[in-house]
Amino acid sequence: MTIPLESIKNRHKKLAQAIKEAGLAGMVLNPGPSLTYFTGLHFHLSERPVVGLFTPDTSPVLVLPELEAAKVENLGYELLPFTYPEEPEKWAGVFKAGAEGAGLGKGNVGVEDRRLRFLELELLKQAMPQANFLNAVDTVAGLRMVKDEGEIAAMQQAVDIAQQALEATLPLIKIGMTEKELAAELVMQILRQGSGTTLPFQPIVATGPDSANPHAFPTDRPLTKGDLLVIDWGANVDGYFSDLTRTFGVGEVNPEQEKIHQIVQEANAAAQALAKPGVSCGDVDKAARDIIEQAGYGEYFIHRTGHGLGMEGHEEPYIRADNPMLLQAGMTFTIEPGIYTPQHGGVRVEDDVVVNKDGLRSFSDMERGLRIVG
Amino acid sequence: MTIPLESIKNRHKKLAQAIKEAGLAGMVLNPGPSLTYFTGLHFHLSERPVVGLFTPDTSPVLVLPELEAAKVENLGYELLPFTYPEEPEKWAGVFKAGAEGAGLGKGNVGVEDRRLRFLELELLKQAMPQANFLNAVDTVAGLRMVKDEGEIAAMQQAVDIAQQALEATLPLIKIGMTEKELAAELVMQILRQGSGTTLPFQPIVATGPDSANPHAFPTDRPLTKGDLLVIDWGANVDGYFSDLTRTFGVGEVNPEQEKIHQIVQEANAAAQALAKPGVSCGDVDKAARDIIEQAGYGEYFIHRTGHGLGMEGHEEPYIRADNPMLLQAGMTFTIEPGIYTPQHGGVRVEDDVVVNKDGLRSFSDMERGLRIVG
Repeated sequence: MTIPLESIKNRHKKLAQAIKEAGLAGMVLNPGPSLTYFTGLHFHLSERPVVGLFTPDTSPVLVLPELEAAKVENLGYELLPFTYPEEPEKWAGVFKAGAEGAGLGKGNVGVEDRRLRFLELELLKQAMPQANFLNAVDTVAGLRMVKDEGEIAAMQQAVDIAQQALEATLPLIKIGMTEKELAAELVMQILRQGSGTTLPFQPIVATGPDSANPHAFPTDRPLTKGDLLVIDWGANVDGYFSDLTRTFGVGEVNPEQEKIHQIVQEANAAAQALAKPGVSCGDVDKAARDIIEQAGYGEYFIHRTGHGLGMEGHEEPYIRADNPMLLQAGMTFTIEPGIYTPQHGGVRVEDDVVVNKDGLRSFSDMERGLRIVG
Repeated sequence: MTIPLESIKNRHKKLAQAIKEAGLAGMVLNPGPSLTYFTGLHFHLSERPVVGLFTPDTSPVLVLPELEAAKVENLGYELLPFTYPEEPEKWAGVFKAGAEGAGLGKGNVGVEDRRLRFLELELLKQAMPQANFLNAVDTVAGLRMVKDEGEIAAMQQAVDIAQQALEATLPLIKIGMTEKELAAELVMQILRQGSGTTLPFQPIVATGPDSANPHAFPTDRPLTKGDLLVIDWGANVDGYFSDLTRTFGVGEVNPEQEKIHQIVQEANAAAQALAKPGVSCGDVDKAARDIIEQAGYGEYFIHRTGHGLGMEGHEEPYIRADNPMLLQAGMTFTIEPGIYTPQHGGVRVEDDVVVNKDGLRSFSDMERGLRIVG
């Protein structure tokens, strides 16, 4: 979506306030969702560094390559561009001019620790030798975490597209096809249903022993009768993501596989039933974990119950045992308990949800029960 | 491709030698092509940091999340894993143990400046407070830059797939369809032809005024008669990339558009004719640039002539005016001169090439002349 100008200006005000409250002189954002959120601009993270410098009292400054200068024309809001030529030895000077343009030179300057690279950091240190750079991802995450109506609508559409794509793929699943072939077919269906071409992540298609690895990459392993089949996939609408998982039986399932699937489904439901404004992320994790532990499978639930979702595949709030953060209306995240056994494979059931005034709404409503395919 | 064990062991030896020659105590690699090149392992760059620690005299150390531990079992070569649990406050201790396991604690430790993030850097600094971290991307790039036979075969296949995909897409192009629709169709064709699902980059489909922006993102602009249409696309085979560009006329072209296309094609040919072992990257850039400048369009050729290509979309060697690096057999890169005019739109013609003993071979042979579509 093109972000409305009023939203961008409003976000600048909120960011200025958040920077002040955090005691920062300013905040540096480099290409990624946060920079897009606050500028409406899209840049690649490449060997040519781009940084946005945000402070409480000046217009945003953007340091960027000359060949991208067209992107900052006629923005409709104030932004001071500082462009550099192709030769790397000229970049430091332009970074210095940009820092001066933003009035930055000392004090604490916040960065996003999962985004800023050594490349930008070295240039920033040269430009502001007296500044102290520190991780301030929470300053930005706090603003991005609560979604507005436009963002929630985009996420619903991303979930709808993903669900339609998997439903269209299921009839094509055959015993003997490889995980990679199934993943490629699913990607085509996701695009055909209207997803943006930058998928939030490449689908996980994991069968048999691979299904017990939560972060498996698709391999040439053929789908085999009696496998559990974990499909973890998502779509992108205007830069907003979905991230779902359903688990299937290939041809047939044994009673143990049915049992662990049932437990995971109950754990998912328990977490969804508990989550509402004022409940902590840790308690949501506990609701799912208790079900699995009480069933005797605690040691096989080897990850947190979920993670925030929006412009990033993983973002705040993290649904983790040790996270005391309280849920607020407008927060969006995944609920995805799993059981991963060495003998029978793995199961995960993942929904995308939004906290509303009274409780929780699941964006996703695709059948969660254990279906047989192939 | 699964990297042969012998190749991995051989690469470890070469890396150990390169680390010594660079006067480094060790080298840190985090998820990305280099870590895969030296370990055969694939990790996501996520909020859970992963680092490989390489030194001249010890086995490689890998710090990783517990939930990815299955990936490092039965590797067939020595690697010391240090795994951490979900709670971030426990990570620093595991990083420290990992550094000790690698025998690292002081001296110069190299990192890849376009890959290492603030997140890993802070943990590494805590683990090795007396070490000095510095950019040593050249130490790794120097090894990765010259491709072996298996790598060259994968790149040829990635080019073949990309070319077949665009040829299959051309008949589907209609005046009135949007840039985004054309991009989505092209992505589907790339996957159908057998590309890995992680594309090297999302295709650029840029028409009319957008075609004058070398890094345009596809928009809802409909293809319009008289537009120039720049398509910049690629495929992925076993983690090796292609990256091609061809420019088309939509419905018709005017004489000025034909002229600038002819000049760009000649510039491309001139660079390809010059490049061979011993010629500098700067001279290859100059060969293309001279043609465009002599034709009076120098100010509209606003980027370098090309960039290295392999496991990354952009890597060494950069074909840039100020790069004195001499070409060697086995280097692979793009040649992609362009002219971007405010009035008539832009043209780029990009091939992927490999230096061989006697000169240059272009992986790509798709028609370079200005074809009319729509």
